[in-house]
Amino acid sequence: MTLSDAQALDRADPLALLRDRFSIPAGTIYLDGNSLGALPRGVQERTVKVVTEEWGRDLITSWNRHDWIDLPRRVGERIAPLIGAEPGTVVVTDSTSLNIFKLLAVAVARAPGRRVIQTERGNFPTDVYVAGGLASLTGHDVRVDDLSTIKDDVAVVLVTEVNYRTGARHDMCELTERAHSAGATIIWDLCHSAGAFPVDLVGAGADYAIGCGYKYLNGGPGAPAFAYVAPRHLAGLRTPLSGWLGHAAPFAFAPDYQPADGIDALRVGTPPIISMSALDAALDAFDGVDLLAVRTKADALFDLFTSEVEARCPEFELLTPRDPVRRGTQVSLRHPEAYAIMQALIARGVIGDFRQPDIMRFGLTPLYLRFEDVYRAAETLADVMETRAWDRPEFKHKAKVV
Amino acid sequence: MTLSDAQALDRADPLALLRDRFSIPAGTIYLDGNSLGALPRGVQERTVKVVTEEWGRDLITSWNRHDWIDLPRRVGERIAPLIGAEPGTVVVTDSTSLNIFKLLAVAVARAPGRRVIQTERGNFPTDVYVAGGLASLTGHDVRVDDLSTIKDDVAVVLVTEVNYRTGARHDMCELTERAHSAGATIIWDLCHSAGAFPVDLVGAGADYAIGCGYKYLNGGPGAPAFAYVAPRHLAGLRTPLSGWLGHAAPFAFAPDYQPADGIDALRVGTPPIISMSALDAALDAFDGVDLLAVRTKADALFDLFTSEVEARCPEFELLTPRDPVRRGTQVSLRHPEAYAIMQALIARGVIGDFRQPDIMRFGLTPLYLRFEDVYRAAETLADVMETRAWDRPEFKHKAKVV
Repeated sequence: MTLSDAQALDRADPLALLRDRFSIPAGTIYLDGNSLGALPRGVQERTVKVVTEEWGRDLITSWNRHDWIDLPRRVGERIAPLIGAEPGTVVVTDSTSLNIFKLLAVAVARAPGRRVIQTERGNFPTDVYVAGGLASLTGHDVRVDDLSTIKDDVAVVLVTEVNYRTGARHDMCELTERAHSAGATIIWDLCHSAGAFPVDLVGAGADYAIGCGYKYLNGGPGAPAFAYVAPRHLAGLRTPLSGWLGHAAPFAFAPDYQPADGIDALRVGTPPIISMSALDAALDAFDGVDLLAVRTKADALFDLFTSEVEARCPEFELLTPRDPVRRGTQVSLRHPEAYAIMQALIARGVIGDFRQPDIMRFGLTPLYLRFEDVYRAAETLADVMETRAWDRPEFKHKAKVV
Repeated sequence: MTLSDAQALDRADPLALLRDRFSIPAGTIYLDGNSLGALPRGVQERTVKVVTEEWGRDLITSWNRHDWIDLPRRVGERIAPLIGAEPGTVVVTDSTSLNIFKLLAVAVARAPGRRVIQTERGNFPTDVYVAGGLASLTGHDVRVDDLSTIKDDVAVVLVTEVNYRTGARHDMCELTERAHSAGATIIWDLCHSAGAFPVDLVGAGADYAIGCGYKYLNGGPGAPAFAYVAPRHLAGLRTPLSGWLGHAAPFAFAPDYQPADGIDALRVGTPPIISMSALDAALDAFDGVDLLAVRTKADALFDLFTSEVEARCPEFELLTPRDPVRRGTQVSLRHPEAYAIMQALIARGVIGDFRQPDIMRFGLTPLYLRFEDVYRAAETLADVMETRAWDRPEFKHKAKVV
């Protein structure tokens, strides 16, 4: 393939115009939307409106006038169709870690007699850490294992659909069914799924899900996270993080906690309205977008990138499964000098990231990436390797955040 | 007193120029800074910078380049002197409710054998709700009582320094000492204290504290909250909300949770950087400000407002203690028609708020309020009462957020 072949693919790309919905810095090829999505146009305008008009001018009255109070639900309703969730089942609140804690607590309370929270070796660390934190209070055991066997002592399975290191994807239907067969419920972590490709929580019969606002949903750094509860589990929903905005009548200031009906019971304290409004505005980038078409383009970008890299750089090991149904939309390459190579790439404007101990990740985000970008990224990577441009001390010094 | 007397007080006010640090809408007298602080100038500029330059242009590299990763600590360090805390003891993270959960969990884990969390009748509901939520996991009892007696079965006392309804203030030194004498620790909720007047956590020997970023600190709607842990309690700090950013080495992605040293152990998930940056910028309004002078002016505003209201409207009951050492900086007035009266005031541009069942609250925030404002507010209130302007159906319909 040549650069002009890649450019021809862009000319034929039915999603090409979506790139205009984003502000991408000139000279940058951004392959880290799996860690922090790029800035959608309209977010700045909305943020200024929230700060100056809603907060600055309308002040406290904005809780009613601009309906800040229901913003967590409104934004949740916009995320629901992206993950195959029913209306009324998704709320935006707190962080992924905290939503894991809440849903694990709900799930184990509903499975008395079952003493195990099961999760997967290699799951994103916060999932495992939070399970341990809850277990330290409830006395449950956290079983960190592969998920091929789910025993009948398991209360709940916590699993990330797409692995953050390898990009490998679980079969949501099959694994949900396996959990249910064992009498357990399942919480799906959609951090590397939501906004990247079609997710079908209803079709899979999932019980609970959580996910991130700042990766493929492009909600901005530390954007609030979302949580999903299947309709059959909404009745009596109650978490131990029983803050006032999860109360059925927060402004009654009643002495006893009475959880809100439905998904609002997952709310806790006052949400960060500016950050949440940025996420709301960012979701405009998905208006009218078919996630199946997004996925199709992501697969084509994957094929282009991996074939170009493999042709030019045989020294890399591709960690990500080649089979599209077995992976998300990132490419993970292994190399002993992965960290330095990634720094050299970043110095040339090709931004991916590194994961311990030897993995380079490249996120393929069709909303704002062109075939040309991915072609040039592979070309730049090949040049970095050929010239050993990575072999400089400044590229080996690890920053605080890697 | 006349309007020109009030204006003379403004001319003599050494803090008068601080008002220029805020953007106050023309025609509005804002007496609800105890619920949502007004917009400081500079916040809009900072928010735009975070969105366009840090997120939009520098993308993922901002975690290092703009040190997003340590923003929770940096903002915490700016709040520390406002609450009489030592360096390294304050972090900005999550919401007040969640920080209460964390610190209660820490406190009870450190008091094995003591089975009671004690809090006060009339405390802000979320404090009581969250104590109940934790107790549902740990089996502790929540004792909701007055605090005159603290028995030796109490693990931790959770108390708000300034009551949200009445504005009455506890004696922090005396009550901390009482808790310690009973062998308990104490968590101070500073939601209605931080930024309103000098707080001296060190002088009081407080163990733990939490507080709000969006009231007197003016951090914007739902701004992240802060948490304080006394240096003697920092060693071994560990909460059950064990998210990855509270880990000693988050980017090692280690399988086991190892809490960060010091106050960072209270961090959980990825923080909302835009909202937290707004709070950071908002704190500029306190640069060079002596909180003792702020308190002195607040007391003068209190005297002006209450004497004018009492002279004109004898039908109100003043709930707030007159003694300055026994109160914060709000004025709470009781009247059976409090809700409708407040709506009528808001319709005339005098913004306070209502608390169930019959309380009007007026927050006195010397950074942006003038004596003239407070005089005019009293005058408007008197007119609303004299003309029964409140006695209209539209002022009696309760909005969702009151």
